[in-house]
Amino acid sequence: MRSIRGRGFRELMPLKEALERLERSIEPLPPQEVHISQAAGRVLAEDVRAERDNPPFSRAAMDGFAVRASSTFGASPSNPRYLRLKGEARAGAGWSGSVGEGEAVRVSTGAPLPAGADAVVMLEHVNVLGGEVEVLRAVPPGKNVALQGEDYRKGEVLLSSGTVLGAKEVAVLASLGRSRVRVAAKPRVRVIATGDELAEPGEELEEGRVYEATGYALLHLCRSAGAEAERAGIVEDRREALREAVRSAASEADVVLITGASSVGEHDLVPEVLQELGRIEVHGIAMRPGEPSGFGRLGRTLVFMLPGYPVATLFSFEALVRPALQLMQGAEPSCPYPAVRAVLRRKIASELGRRDFVRVRLERAGEGYEAEPVRVSGSGVLSSMLRAHGFTVVPENTEGVEKGESIEVRLFTPLQGACCGG
Amino acid sequence: MRSIRGRGFRELMPLKEALERLERSIEPLPPQEVHISQAAGRVLAEDVRAERDNPPFSRAAMDGFAVRASSTFGASPSNPRYLRLKGEARAGAGWSGSVGEGEAVRVSTGAPLPAGADAVVMLEHVNVLGGEVEVLRAVPPGKNVALQGEDYRKGEVLLSSGTVLGAKEVAVLASLGRSRVRVAAKPRVRVIATGDELAEPGEELEEGRVYEATGYALLHLCRSAGAEAERAGIVEDRREALREAVRSAASEADVVLITGASSVGEHDLVPEVLQELGRIEVHGIAMRPGEPSGFGRLGRTLVFMLPGYPVATLFSFEALVRPALQLMQGAEPSCPYPAVRAVLRRKIASELGRRDFVRVRLERAGEGYEAEPVRVSGSGVLSSMLRAHGFTVVPENTEGVEKGESIEVRLFTPLQGACCGG
Repeated sequence: MRSIRGRGFRELMPLKEALERLERSIEPLPPQEVHISQAAGRVLAEDVRAERDNPPFSRAAMDGFAVRASSTFGASPSNPRYLRLKGEARAGAGWSGSVGEGEAVRVSTGAPLPAGADAVVMLEHVNVLGGEVEVLRAVPPGKNVALQGEDYRKGEVLLSSGTVLGAKEVAVLASLGRSRVRVAAKPRVRVIATGDELAEPGEELEEGRVYEATGYALLHLCRSAGAEAERAGIVEDRREALREAVRSAASEADVVLITGASSVGEHDLVPEVLQELGRIEVHGIAMRPGEPSGFGRLGRTLVFMLPGYPVATLFSFEALVRPALQLMQGAEPSCPYPAVRAVLRRKIASELGRRDFVRVRLERAGEGYEAEPVRVSGSGVLSSMLRAHGFTVVPENTEGVEKGESIEVRLFTPLQGACCGG
Repeated sequence: MRSIRGRGFRELMPLKEALERLERSIEPLPPQEVHISQAAGRVLAEDVRAERDNPPFSRAAMDGFAVRASSTFGASPSNPRYLRLKGEARAGAGWSGSVGEGEAVRVSTGAPLPAGADAVVMLEHVNVLGGEVEVLRAVPPGKNVALQGEDYRKGEVLLSSGTVLGAKEVAVLASLGRSRVRVAAKPRVRVIATGDELAEPGEELEEGRVYEATGYALLHLCRSAGAEAERAGIVEDRREALREAVRSAASEADVVLITGASSVGEHDLVPEVLQELGRIEVHGIAMRPGEPSGFGRLGRTLVFMLPGYPVATLFSFEALVRPALQLMQGAEPSCPYPAVRAVLRRKIASELGRRDFVRVRLERAGEGYEAEPVRVSGSGVLSSMLRAHGFTVVPENTEGVEKGESIEVRLFTPLQGACCGG
């Protein structure tokens, strides 16, 4: 791969190499136990095996009558079969006898299938006539029955370590009888915003200042990656103040994010301070936006240097920080933005050796989409994020993408309507 | 539309009609104010307008030298232009003078653009020689400058009421100086699981019983839709106990979900109890799974009757409850599961007049996917949810989908890798 120079950087590192160094420097967090009512979004830190079959016993899947299927063969409305009604099995209360040929036991959904029975005739296909039931339809063996172990068998690994738990996985844990589960600890993240020009939202804005927005965006991005994140406030561009803020944040966090002052200008103190307190592992990455990103360590704490502009920081976060937070929790890096394919409407130019993240607007075109790059004059243009539907990644081995080519777009916001299909 | 009969239901209502009745019966929740550090996932309850231009002043978008662009015209490494260095403007501290023809002021990124200047020459294209700067490259007006108001202008509506707030939207709020924002209250949901056969996870499992899993899945599904949800425990199939549980849950919640006993069997007490305490609006919907679903009201509380099986309940939740929770918060119904298209590998049969939710497994095929319906013998088969990658919706106006047809699949879990493109 061709190496390229950045603004003020002697050499920029390819993102792939930066990620390999990052992965090597990740220490997985210790596991902890949580109740399943608090487990969604957490990463499983154990292999969960079935301790018993599920269903634990064969049971009725419908309200109706448990029978031997063979007793119903040939039954039809014009030629019913008559079976002797022997009793009733309800959910939570079985029936202790055995169902023989020519016999039936009333069952409700979820009731254990009585011994001898191998099928259930639905309520709607039966008339009850005193001590007899008139069966109007034949059933094959297994019909309307949930067989013991058909869902899963004892000993089977149902959920593997590293799985991100959602509603479905929690339902599986509950059905296994697990009220508590081992998950990775949440990474503790502290976000420091640097810059003399920054003012706290809610305060008066003095001439020449802008409100701090990047730190708030990072807070929510970190939480969406399973972290416990807090802002550590705004720090002025003074060496001593920055040193103290970084040291203090690192002492109580697994990860510190520092926005701004990460480049190589005279007032970009962050790399100097990090090198002084700990060590820099990567600084300057061949990606745009997000070039002046990097990371290092202060003791056991991973410290990221991120650009100050919200838009650039979003991409630095997605390229570096989200994978780090996921790996610390034992999960594979994955992207929360769904991918769709789209046809590019206008050429995107890019530099060989650099990975570009390009915001695009989408428009429907037949069953698919067309993508229009969002023109922006700087990465500080926040409203362009609101106009864009997503972004596309232009890899290092190309000088751009031609008009008319099919590209993959990652969507910030789902484009579809309700789940039921509208 | 053809009306179809369900198991024990005289008539099943089309889902579209059920949703229209649901929408009419929704009362929006009152707004409340939250801090932007707690705003992600909440639904905006105001139109947010820009109170000032952004950037509030024109500023340098790069480290370099602020100039009149015309002073640099014709500059090249072999034919540099020499400008007089007059001062320095830093972020948070402007420079009070004016830049004339043949003059330059050093600027760092974010610094206010000095009066008279209309462009910034990057640091890399300049040599500083005492009181002079040697400019090696020409810049057009506006180059490396973020112009006042180019992001957004005073009075512009940047975020509309009903928007679900994410990291990007919070960044916009912060950049507007907003520390607090009006959002819809979180719907308070209580989940009641009914059934004599249910045992609480973590307890010993008696013969004939199964662990309660559906309520736990609903807990996390509700939270993913922005609700504050708690389980109200397991209730036996006894009229008095159920009545008391529903009354108590309704008194402290905006929405009550009741799982199980919602059909028309002898032991299905939920519809009776709901009719007795309040009123039923819809019961029995032409969808599968989820047919015995319905809803009604108890005073101001919306009460949903849902199937007891976790899989059926998931689809009832997505078809009815998620849209209700979103509408209560003032948001448009939307699906959290990204859509992809896939070619169907095996015919799906469906009944005319009924909407079917069919779980599928996906496999990559070229740039696209192929979908294989997951064979299941009953909706209690939870592990089928783990095997399936998503589901497809078969609408009412068709008797199924043929092998080879292109279908839309909603994914439970994203299929893509890391955001940076790997």
